[in-house]
Amino acid sequence: MIFVAELQAREDSIDTVHALLADLARTTAAEDGALAYSVRQHLDDPTRFQVSEHYRDHLAFEQHMASPPVQHALARFAELLRAPPAVARYEEKAALPQTQGVTLSVADAIRQRRAARHYRPDAVDPRVLDELIELTLAAPSSWNLQDRQLVIITSEGGRQALAHATGGQSQPQEAPVMVVFLADCMAHARDRSDIVNLARTNGAWNETFANFFAAESQSFQEALAARGALREYAIKDAMIAASFFMLAAQSRGLATSPMNGWDEALVKRAIGAEQRDDPAVALLVSLGYAAEQPLAPGRRPATMNVFRERVPD
Amino acid sequence: MIFVAELQAREDSIDTVHALLADLARTTAAEDGALAYSVRQHLDDPTRFQVSEHYRDHLAFEQHMASPPVQHALARFAELLRAPPAVARYEEKAALPQTQGVTLSVADAIRQRRAARHYRPDAVDPRVLDELIELTLAAPSSWNLQDRQLVIITSEGGRQALAHATGGQSQPQEAPVMVVFLADCMAHARDRSDIVNLARTNGAWNETFANFFAAESQSFQEALAARGALREYAIKDAMIAASFFMLAAQSRGLATSPMNGWDEALVKRAIGAEQRDDPAVALLVSLGYAAEQPLAPGRRPATMNVFRERVPD
Repeated sequence: MIFVAELQAREDSIDTVHALLADLARTTAAEDGALAYSVRQHLDDPTRFQVSEHYRDHLAFEQHMASPPVQHALARFAELLRAPPAVARYEEKAALPQTQGVTLSVADAIRQRRAARHYRPDAVDPRVLDELIELTLAAPSSWNLQDRQLVIITSEGGRQALAHATGGQSQPQEAPVMVVFLADCMAHARDRSDIVNLARTNGAWNETFANFFAAESQSFQEALAARGALREYAIKDAMIAASFFMLAAQSRGLATSPMNGWDEALVKRAIGAEQRDDPAVALLVSLGYAAEQPLAPGRRPATMNVFRERVPD
Repeated sequence: MIFVAELQAREDSIDTVHALLADLARTTAAEDGALAYSVRQHLDDPTRFQVSEHYRDHLAFEQHMASPPVQHALARFAELLRAPPAVARYEEKAALPQTQGVTLSVADAIRQRRAARHYRPDAVDPRVLDELIELTLAAPSSWNLQDRQLVIITSEGGRQALAHATGGQSQPQEAPVMVVFLADCMAHARDRSDIVNLARTNGAWNETFANFFAAESQSFQEALAARGALREYAIKDAMIAASFFMLAAQSRGLATSPMNGWDEALVKRAIGAEQRDDPAVALLVSLGYAAEQPLAPGRRPATMNVFRERVPD
């Protein structure tokens, strides 16, 4: 429910009314049922204020109105305003996605995420999947190599092959989408001029930086090759992408499960990569609507895994 | 800038006006500069609509007004409304935190994130850092091993040692906080009964599952050890944690830079771990307030790195 109040302050009370309303915005922030509370001052007439308030339901609105800070403000308005506030109540009929609650904040996505082993059969909207892919590809990679690849598996045969590769786990059998995150260990050996050209076109890199970058990234990767670390570094980039994917999915109301328990050769056979060395399998992630609400197993206290300045002896 | 329009539909045009406004909410969602767009219908008089729109700046508002969907709607209103819309413009003076943009959605955090090489000297509020650590530790890990550790470096000496380990890069010298993400390769060899007990206390695992889990996770890790993959799997978990950290920081208005260019022995010496094999260095991440607004270098088209069902031949 949306409540809109129009207030006209006396000329000598503008600052006081502004301060009172700003205080209300602060105290209202503690109310669970308050979804939005916006205090506005008219651009042409600074005596005019509008307060647009969004409550989860009528009860939340009534609790807000009965709260001591609101009662205090209402008592003060009699002397501060030129007339009683003009109020109107609305029902919200449409809004941008972020105000409809279908998009979670990062903190909420992290706190609400649980690995889901079981899924409802509901399909994932292809437009939502496309957005998740876009957000996944926006993840950073070492030297902007973009040395990670996604193989999206939705076919019955493909999911059964992954179920076999995971020793018969439930996720590939139940989730409508499986994503195989590949680490492209030989990305630096292929033509990457398009990456440099795009960054220059976008104004992100100038010619000096682009030349420096092309040379430095090549010698960095060759040094990795010399010490056998290409796979490790490509897997790191694939894991950033997979992590972004999991949180983006959570923020759209979808569940995931990161899966490490599989036979790499069988996964590669399932995606037609059995003859190739360059892509390593980093992670399998299932995607769909959870058929369970797993409880959180919890985490060790931070003192066990977070250290200041030095690791403990 | 906030723009509020009041519309009164003709009795026989209520549904048409509602549909037109809902369409505008959908098309406006694609505008970068549109922060909120709420279409409301009056609870007592269904002919009355209010549209409350929030734009990043005046330019974003003008671009919105000039867009074809808005021009189309304005042309239709002449016959659908009892009078021209009454409009007013406001400046927002106060709002709940979530509408002030201090908490980003996952999608916005991903889209706005850029690796920042240069930082302002401003310190990071310890309460914010504590929240970022909490969110980082909430990241999933294989078998809930929690086999990743964070070393938080804020001292001048510690940051200079990391600057040295990175070949003199700017991030450790400028950012007020550096986080070394360690992969704990021997987590399975230490007592983990606290992890199982906590999950049982939290009701997440019953006794059967707890016993199964303890045995299966141990044999999984021993199989990794047999094929020399403990480091790879611990690094995967550390990278998920580092990825969650980067997005959580972005959502709180902080910048980060993931760093791969360092000498592992020198990083371990900087944190007092030079004598130990079990923690591997996965990633360094700088944290602070960006002193630059780097442009996005861009990404390759999805067709190059996203495949359906099978990798290309």
